[in-house]
Amino acid sequence: MDDKTRTPVTVIGLGLMGQALAGAFLRAGHPTTVWNRTAGKADGLVAEGARAAATVGDAIAAGSLTVICVTDYRAVHETLGAADVELDGTTLINLTSGDSGQARETARWAEARGARYLDGAVMAVPPTIGTPDAVILHSGARSDFDAHEQTLGALGTVTYLGADHGLASLYDAAGLVMMWSLLNAWLQGAALLRTAGVDAGTYAPFAQRMAAGVADWLPGYAEQIDRGSFPAEVSALETDVRAMAHLIEESEAAGVNAELPRLLKAMADRAVAAGHGKEQYPVLIEEFVKPGTR
Amino acid sequence: MDDKTRTPVTVIGLGLMGQALAGAFLRAGHPTTVWNRTAGKADGLVAEGARAAATVGDAIAAGSLTVICVTDYRAVHETLGAADVELDGTTLINLTSGDSGQARETARWAEARGARYLDGAVMAVPPTIGTPDAVILHSGARSDFDAHEQTLGALGTVTYLGADHGLASLYDAAGLVMMWSLLNAWLQGAALLRTAGVDAGTYAPFAQRMAAGVADWLPGYAEQIDRGSFPAEVSALETDVRAMAHLIEESEAAGVNAELPRLLKAMADRAVAAGHGKEQYPVLIEEFVKPGTR
Repeated sequence: MDDKTRTPVTVIGLGLMGQALAGAFLRAGHPTTVWNRTAGKADGLVAEGARAAATVGDAIAAGSLTVICVTDYRAVHETLGAADVELDGTTLINLTSGDSGQARETARWAEARGARYLDGAVMAVPPTIGTPDAVILHSGARSDFDAHEQTLGALGTVTYLGADHGLASLYDAAGLVMMWSLLNAWLQGAALLRTAGVDAGTYAPFAQRMAAGVADWLPGYAEQIDRGSFPAEVSALETDVRAMAHLIEESEAAGVNAELPRLLKAMADRAVAAGHGKEQYPVLIEEFVKPGTR
Repeated sequence: MDDKTRTPVTVIGLGLMGQALAGAFLRAGHPTTVWNRTAGKADGLVAEGARAAATVGDAIAAGSLTVICVTDYRAVHETLGAADVELDGTTLINLTSGDSGQARETARWAEARGARYLDGAVMAVPPTIGTPDAVILHSGARSDFDAHEQTLGALGTVTYLGADHGLASLYDAAGLVMMWSLLNAWLQGAALLRTAGVDAGTYAPFAQRMAAGVADWLPGYAEQIDRGSFPAEVSALETDVRAMAHLIEESEAAGVNAELPRLLKAMADRAVAAGHGKEQYPVLIEEFVKPGTR
């Protein structure tokens, strides 16, 4: 397929991520129009073959698919709400970071102006855009995703989550809490082992095996959650709580931070106090689904 | 090898774990002597071929390798400190749960009485003992581990960590904090996604891929920690902190527990306040290696 038959695309917002997105479209042969609030950011892309539009309205009018990636949802509304912008007939892919409520509200706002709208989340850093390592999540109408899946595939591994426009933000948040939690767990272990002269590189493969082993349990634990039934097939929550007390003692005795162990125990203690001590760990979901203490 | 040539072993403490340990030795053909503070716990094992000793001293005298797994280290000292117990010439493998300080102190105590001593940690539940899934960590003199590695192999996948007797407890603690942190991160994500009607089984494979992807970074991040240098090759901590604020907002807006997101941000905020905002995430190790707030 030569460039003439590739879908023309527009990229609004040329921060590091926007530039990476536009660059990936260009490398895949898509006629690419770009726009940024402040001038100059487009120069490198123009040198690679992009067309810099004079106004956001012109940029969106250049094709039927627009990817927007700006600072926040307020900037999305300001940019797309400009007087010369015609959204009717456009499919908007909003890759701006925000929460699920903002995504749903922006979907209603854009659809009221005649746009098709998919909300997305980029679970990648700019240098990986355009490679399979860049996972990009999408939520909204399945037909809109299907219509543009091949084009969006130029950006990385694109995934469709469901019709609720809030799903991309929610999966993004879930993925981030997994990322930081796993890293902090590893740092807690590395801090403990450093007290015995073990370096982080020695501990890393052990932590990797542990994480992989625990991740293997998730589908089985998910069945317990989805059934709402938590028999202690492997061990009871009250046994975990006793071991958590040892973990706090070990951290305090070693002189390392014990805030993470204390939070683990505080949440498990509340579940035991609620009568779940003889059930299995995933019963803790009942603490996670409510606001809890501040 | 018939039973006559297998190393005789003694197992002290017949709780669920001790029974599983003795059972695995029996199945592997080791002449096995058992003892428990209260009678009756040995009956099933005796039916399988174990010999029940009348006193702990008799039990230990039956061979040169004793595995002890009791409630806590206090019980270890009470049991092995009995008047008729002769530890000289025995190798003790202490699989009782405790902290690294207790392990080191018990090593000194046992060695002063003429025993060889390895401290261990069982990272497994009783039903897996005797299978490769049961990971058992050992620390102490390498020569003592090497002398008994084959015999201990009847219990599961046995691993040697180093000469410091505290290592098994420290690795155990590190592994447990990884286990509970990964599970809690998954529960946080499952709680968020439940607000959009996504069940835990749908989310589980996404969480597994996320955990595996992040685990892949650990060796590279470990190099930064061991060098003490944290250039922002992929992203800067201050970018993480902004995304953590979104995660808190998302959790609060969804009405789910936000304690874990708030702890993640509180620790990262302190590292930014200490001047590390332009560095990469593993610089947080500096918060983990000190006691922190209570």
